[in-house]
Amino acid sequence: MQNNVIDRKIVDEKLNACGIEDMEDATIRDIVKTVNMIEAESGSRFIRMEMGVPGLAPSKIGIDAEIEALRNGCAQFYPMLEGLPQLKTEGSKFVKNFVDIDIKPEGIIPTTGSMQACYAAFMAVTECVKGKDCILFIDPGFPVQKTQVQVIGKPLKSFDVYNYRGEALRDKLEEYLSQGDIAAILYSNPNNPAWISFTPEELQIIGEMANKYDVIILEDLAYFAMDFRRDLSRPGIPPFQPSVAKYTQNYILMISGSKVFSYAGQRLGLMCISDALYNRKYENLHARFGGLGTLGYTIVNRIIYTMTSGTTHSCQYAMAAILQAANEGRMNILEGVREYAERAHAMKNLFTKYGFQIVYDKDLDEPIADGFYFTLTYPGFSGGDLAREILYYGISAIPLRDTGSTKQGLRACVSQTGLERMPELEERLKAFAADHQS
Amino acid sequence: MQNNVIDRKIVDEKLNACGIEDMEDATIRDIVKTVNMIEAESGSRFIRMEMGVPGLAPSKIGIDAEIEALRNGCAQFYPMLEGLPQLKTEGSKFVKNFVDIDIKPEGIIPTTGSMQACYAAFMAVTECVKGKDCILFIDPGFPVQKTQVQVIGKPLKSFDVYNYRGEALRDKLEEYLSQGDIAAILYSNPNNPAWISFTPEELQIIGEMANKYDVIILEDLAYFAMDFRRDLSRPGIPPFQPSVAKYTQNYILMISGSKVFSYAGQRLGLMCISDALYNRKYENLHARFGGLGTLGYTIVNRIIYTMTSGTTHSCQYAMAAILQAANEGRMNILEGVREYAERAHAMKNLFTKYGFQIVYDKDLDEPIADGFYFTLTYPGFSGGDLAREILYYGISAIPLRDTGSTKQGLRACVSQTGLERMPELEERLKAFAADHQS
Repeated sequence: MQNNVIDRKIVDEKLNACGIEDMEDATIRDIVKTVNMIEAESGSRFIRMEMGVPGLAPSKIGIDAEIEALRNGCAQFYPMLEGLPQLKTEGSKFVKNFVDIDIKPEGIIPTTGSMQACYAAFMAVTECVKGKDCILFIDPGFPVQKTQVQVIGKPLKSFDVYNYRGEALRDKLEEYLSQGDIAAILYSNPNNPAWISFTPEELQIIGEMANKYDVIILEDLAYFAMDFRRDLSRPGIPPFQPSVAKYTQNYILMISGSKVFSYAGQRLGLMCISDALYNRKYENLHARFGGLGTLGYTIVNRIIYTMTSGTTHSCQYAMAAILQAANEGRMNILEGVREYAERAHAMKNLFTKYGFQIVYDKDLDEPIADGFYFTLTYPGFSGGDLAREILYYGISAIPLRDTGSTKQGLRACVSQTGLERMPELEERLKAFAADHQS
Repeated sequence: MQNNVIDRKIVDEKLNACGIEDMEDATIRDIVKTVNMIEAESGSRFIRMEMGVPGLAPSKIGIDAEIEALRNGCAQFYPMLEGLPQLKTEGSKFVKNFVDIDIKPEGIIPTTGSMQACYAAFMAVTECVKGKDCILFIDPGFPVQKTQVQVIGKPLKSFDVYNYRGEALRDKLEEYLSQGDIAAILYSNPNNPAWISFTPEELQIIGEMANKYDVIILEDLAYFAMDFRRDLSRPGIPPFQPSVAKYTQNYILMISGSKVFSYAGQRLGLMCISDALYNRKYENLHARFGGLGTLGYTIVNRIIYTMTSGTTHSCQYAMAAILQAANEGRMNILEGVREYAERAHAMKNLFTKYGFQIVYDKDLDEPIADGFYFTLTYPGFSGGDLAREILYYGISAIPLRDTGSTKQGLRACVSQTGLERMPELEERLKAFAADHQS
């Protein structure tokens, strides 16, 4: 071990100082903090892949609209809880144009990030029917969503989808749903961290199961349209972002402003509730939260109202302008973010060149897309050990275990690493390989 | 009844259409909706006093800073969960300058409105000690805070402070706290809706009780410094905003950006946690939420993280600039909002001239301040009946019952009624009096 890029003593010291013995026990934020400290002391800039920090300039259309709204005085007035009318209308058009589904404007609700959309949805769906309060996660997934369920105080179950792709998914879901305690199923598509995408057949299976067991599907579209194998960016023209909404009415979609619009700082997400669910009345929602007892009313007038009283006013104008431009074809929603695919392509090539392997590598028989994340492993290493070992070579990523994967490996995010750093990454990987090749 | 300003049929019709039989059963938002409909159909503009909609232009310093931050690209980057460093520093200086208390910057946490501050605080304080999970409200109060406790799923108790001012407050608090189930006490000061302000002696009693029973005080300073009987606007110069923080370390203060800075649209509040509480570890917080188990860590890294992942980036720059200007004496925090006092003065004069009475009229032996709200009654009317009856005269307000008051009467908010409308108000009150004087 002589080729390491960073002084091993500094790495060990900082891991110690942050109380990290096994990287598998550290949170993403813990690892971010540790790497910050190592960078500061070593003076060496890491290839940072541990956190999804959108690394592109935010939509100018959004910024301009937001500044105009501020100049026009929107800061003075409470936002409407259910959202700005034009945002709701453009959101409704957006899901028609890019997912090819119909949702009335009332079902499009702005939230303080997709994070709030998911939190509010968890709170509502786990209270619709007494005794049916468990969230089923199709893993791997975003760890914080499990923390949300813990904070809310509800039970969760999960399984790694690795061995249950295609028709095998049906039996696996049936195994859980037949027990009667599952209120909702959550997954992300494209998937964080594995960047797998469910096929239309798999989405149909999920939809059919949702209908059969009257379960709500929470579809996290944080990486909307970012399956770059197909061009999903043309309004009203197929192919569209695949969605379970084609196969069931029991759905809530969550669209993030952070990734596709590089708008993470302003905390603006969209919750898209199917028309059928929005106005569906549940006796237990009424008993638990008061009011009308419909799902839409409960989420808007009880949960979002009491959490934050709506969403920052100026950001709603920004998102309305962005969606309108996308709907009218004045802006291509993937223009900026296509770069993530190029980065992923280059990085995956380098990692595999030096002996690493992609863990989740296929959607059935099709290779997965290049995108925001990919998964990595190296022969002979557990996920925790590998996450630690690459630190010595100036590279950071998180172990897969925390994402609910049963595989040994790492999640790597391309967002913080521009193409110009590929030569540096190659050097570091070469050094790693020299020390570890058997 | 011949002098009414609005066609009685229209009022009755719209109340019916909104499902309001007794005004005491309607929420604020229900009443807002009904009055919107009556205004639209009658073509008559109401004297609207039912909702606290800050009616002044937002701080220009805030708007300018927010626009600059957007131009500099803050929209791209996730905000830090615990808040922007300069906002935390200026917040710490602000509470020193205007409340005369010391809180380290780490304890100053931006939230998506005071609403989120209160929600997050409720979630944390009710989980610190097993079995100690009840919130005690010193009423009257803001009804939505009780809805928050309901949404979170915790118990609450409350009493109307009307008969327990001064030393009588001690025994009343002891009666509740001695039962051992109270986690925290919530009140607003100045009070929404009664605009009473606790005296230093009363705050001392509350602080002593908090120490004796190890209970956390949640002090809602939504109407910061707006007790206009004294000039609380000079940084570092007494008198200061009175606070329980002078008498106990068991406190969390909540400061709203909506009222004193007219910044309601952007949803920005500050949660100010005492140094002692911020780092205090509770076994049950660790068991319930994981992580360090300290109050500050749990609120920031578990509750705010999972609710919204922090607070909109640009708004934090706005609030940092506003607080800095206030701290440096470049901006008088009460400059704009003093107008509320003038309005209240004029309106209270008119109402009492035509036979109404102020319900909560004194802080012990001192008349209450003129401010954002006041309370009203008219001989022979219940709160619900009076709220309905004034609708016929083009005036809207909410019954006190929903605020936890045991008194019959109304809460009136001055925020939407400029001084130029006083002649109109007088005409309507004259008509009311002509119809109702015995």
